[in-house]
Amino acid sequence: MTKPVPADTLSHLKAVLGEGGWSQDPDRLAPKLQEWRGRWTGQTPLLALPRSTAQVAAVVGVCAADGVAITPQGGNTGLVAGQIPRGEILLSTEKLTAVRDVDAFDDVMVLEAGVTLARAHEVALSVNRRFPLSLASEGSCTIGGLASTNAGGTAVLRYGVMRDQILGIEAVLPNGEVWNGLKRLRKDNTGYDLKHLLIGAEGTLGIITAASLKLYPRLVSRCVAIAAVATPHDAIALLARAKDETGGAVEAFELMSRLGVAFALKNIPGLREPLEAVHPWYVLVETASGEPGAAEAAMERLLAGALETGLIQDAAIAQTEAQAHAFWAVRENQSGGQKPEGAAWKHDISVPVSKVADFIDQATAAVERLSPGVRVVAFGHVGDGNVHYDVLRPDGGLDDAHDVLRDEGARIVHDIVAAMDGSISAEHGLGAMKSAEALRYKSAVEIEALRAVRSALDPRRIMNPRVLF
Amino acid sequence: MTKPVPADTLSHLKAVLGEGGWSQDPDRLAPKLQEWRGRWTGQTPLLALPRSTAQVAAVVGVCAADGVAITPQGGNTGLVAGQIPRGEILLSTEKLTAVRDVDAFDDVMVLEAGVTLARAHEVALSVNRRFPLSLASEGSCTIGGLASTNAGGTAVLRYGVMRDQILGIEAVLPNGEVWNGLKRLRKDNTGYDLKHLLIGAEGTLGIITAASLKLYPRLVSRCVAIAAVATPHDAIALLARAKDETGGAVEAFELMSRLGVAFALKNIPGLREPLEAVHPWYVLVETASGEPGAAEAAMERLLAGALETGLIQDAAIAQTEAQAHAFWAVRENQSGGQKPEGAAWKHDISVPVSKVADFIDQATAAVERLSPGVRVVAFGHVGDGNVHYDVLRPDGGLDDAHDVLRDEGARIVHDIVAAMDGSISAEHGLGAMKSAEALRYKSAVEIEALRAVRSALDPRRIMNPRVLF
Repeated sequence: MTKPVPADTLSHLKAVLGEGGWSQDPDRLAPKLQEWRGRWTGQTPLLALPRSTAQVAAVVGVCAADGVAITPQGGNTGLVAGQIPRGEILLSTEKLTAVRDVDAFDDVMVLEAGVTLARAHEVALSVNRRFPLSLASEGSCTIGGLASTNAGGTAVLRYGVMRDQILGIEAVLPNGEVWNGLKRLRKDNTGYDLKHLLIGAEGTLGIITAASLKLYPRLVSRCVAIAAVATPHDAIALLARAKDETGGAVEAFELMSRLGVAFALKNIPGLREPLEAVHPWYVLVETASGEPGAAEAAMERLLAGALETGLIQDAAIAQTEAQAHAFWAVRENQSGGQKPEGAAWKHDISVPVSKVADFIDQATAAVERLSPGVRVVAFGHVGDGNVHYDVLRPDGGLDDAHDVLRDEGARIVHDIVAAMDGSISAEHGLGAMKSAEALRYKSAVEIEALRAVRSALDPRRIMNPRVLF
Repeated sequence: MTKPVPADTLSHLKAVLGEGGWSQDPDRLAPKLQEWRGRWTGQTPLLALPRSTAQVAAVVGVCAADGVAITPQGGNTGLVAGQIPRGEILLSTEKLTAVRDVDAFDDVMVLEAGVTLARAHEVALSVNRRFPLSLASEGSCTIGGLASTNAGGTAVLRYGVMRDQILGIEAVLPNGEVWNGLKRLRKDNTGYDLKHLLIGAEGTLGIITAASLKLYPRLVSRCVAIAAVATPHDAIALLARAKDETGGAVEAFELMSRLGVAFALKNIPGLREPLEAVHPWYVLVETASGEPGAAEAAMERLLAGALETGLIQDAAIAQTEAQAHAFWAVRENQSGGQKPEGAAWKHDISVPVSKVADFIDQATAAVERLSPGVRVVAFGHVGDGNVHYDVLRPDGGLDDAHDVLRDEGARIVHDIVAAMDGSISAEHGLGAMKSAEALRYKSAVEIEALRAVRSALDPRRIMNPRVLF
């Protein structure tokens, strides 16, 4: 818990924010203090609701002068408690919602931190362009949070992570100064690239207030299919083939186990069995191309070849938009479908793509040794080596008994990941939840360098102090 | 000029490098002390030729302990004097040439710093993959230099700059410690991304000793064309159309002026006039696709539409590999073709794509006011807003008279770039040549942050001390 904030600082903050620019109303604060799955609840002496970059700078300036800590928050969709204060000032970007610019010529849009991802998609579409980042919480998550956590999602295979979409950043640094790095250049080699330090820093090096983001052409041809494979090894082999044969047209390549599909079908209304028979593993593949008909042609060629060689056992290509949505709904409910099944240990890991199948084999054997009967649901963006590896309590077991083993389970899974040169947080970040765990797997050399950078930019450690190193 | 290196340090360095691991032979040193165009000549008390990362670490360790400065050098193809020592120890990566791994499953290759770009292309091809970075000096430039300067080239429009190709970095930090960040993950969100700090740092934050690099599918269909446009404004309009209509299939979009084409035809043997008539401006367009025939179809559709609306006056699509090479040869000799024409001020700038044409108009009017009769050759990667803007002395004028105005000319050009929110070094970096100039255009907030980071990681400023801020 952070030390109490002096009354003088609170008065000063209220003054710079003005009426409507802050709140101490418990009802107003409650949704921002509660992590959305209910795993963490926070406290704050003041919710700051700045309406402009200048007001963010004023807040940080007051806090920097008084040595008072700040936790920034975007859409509050984070999964690792990076956005939940424990006594710090809570700075929400919810009022920073301006679309400052959108330009199809430069293929760029400039959005403030509080704009949601869903709105960003609309802005791009308004000039006949596409913003490719795509993730389940798009209605709530915001540009500032996406940039600060370097979010991933389902379109990384082709387009990269949030970092790759960012051309420029405006941020308030820990000293309260505004850094205007809102360039829209594709090339700029004039010293260290400060924006890359702020992206993924989880609010510890400053508060991102706006970003200029890349736009992409809309692709006229698009095709979604679900294929059945015998093992994750075969899924990886199919991925290699898909990359080879389609020349980069693969937009998504998502793995699902039968258990995950079965939970989704059982617990989520309206979903349909994707293939006639039941299969041990499934992949959802999406291709897209700027050339009319090319995505469909590539998909048909890929699946026909894979069926012929026995790499896949069955496949269905969505014939309508509705069918494509239905296929995606099965994938998107891999997490929601588990919920009624009881307690789960969840891991967001990545390994080199070639090791995904080995990881699933080894981790599953190891968690079964720890707790016989656990039910593993492994799914995710296997095209970029990112597996959401969820371990549910045994059927009929007790949630509490499972929860007790959560940390031990995580350690076992993370050790296997580390031995494969993987990452214990592929896309969710570290937050307050995983920072200590991450220290175990980083070299002393790296930790020292990262800490030196942080101290250099935030010597009083006022920015999200409980997060990272 | 850096202060003299103590004799003890030199003995110590020779000891850690061993026989054959260093040189003081003037003949051996000469090519490494001379910038390749002959604009700068350097000095060094010792050329270090480490054979391993451990030896690089030993050298940096000795220098860190003694406070002795180091200039790292790759292929010595830099254009801004970042690699030319002025009394520092010169550390060449020429012996770090191992291909540590290449893996078509993970789409990654791990190369040591001294591997040339041409060799990198071969390594990728050996597993039926492609490494897309492409630039004129590929036979000499090396992975370490490309990463340290965040090189660009002709494939940026589709694939991004060198930074975008790097999955991991191994480097020796200024304290002499080896940081092994050679991951091969597409997603890893576990704190600040140290590799992004080292990329583009021009050797000031450490010496990159190896990198893991992305591989891409080879594209089966590829098409090169040259089109004639009336003005750079029309070129930009054609670019927008190309991006729209081909859905991202454009690999290169390069602008050339008639004067640049005429100089190449006049001064480089074997080149041919690309179109029947003479035109004021040309663009070279390359499309590529993983779908057979798609690149050709997209190009034909694009050019036919543009001819119909009068956006282009003529176009030729290369019918053979040889013809495609001939088109590219005209583009690649835009720089070489000028050489016999006398002294030139050269600028490597970028502006938002939408402003490229305005930039050329404004800059050309301004340099003509400064020195009537100058001959402007503007060309380059206009698809990503990067223009090589060269200003040759007036026909029949004196080189010396032109050279005298070089700095004044650069200031005029750079001020126009800055007013358009552009960059005064799009792809060449700052080196010793442009660092002071760049300070003029950065905010105090940014300079302070960049300096704080540098001091934090290199408190004695031993790494390439005359470069950057």
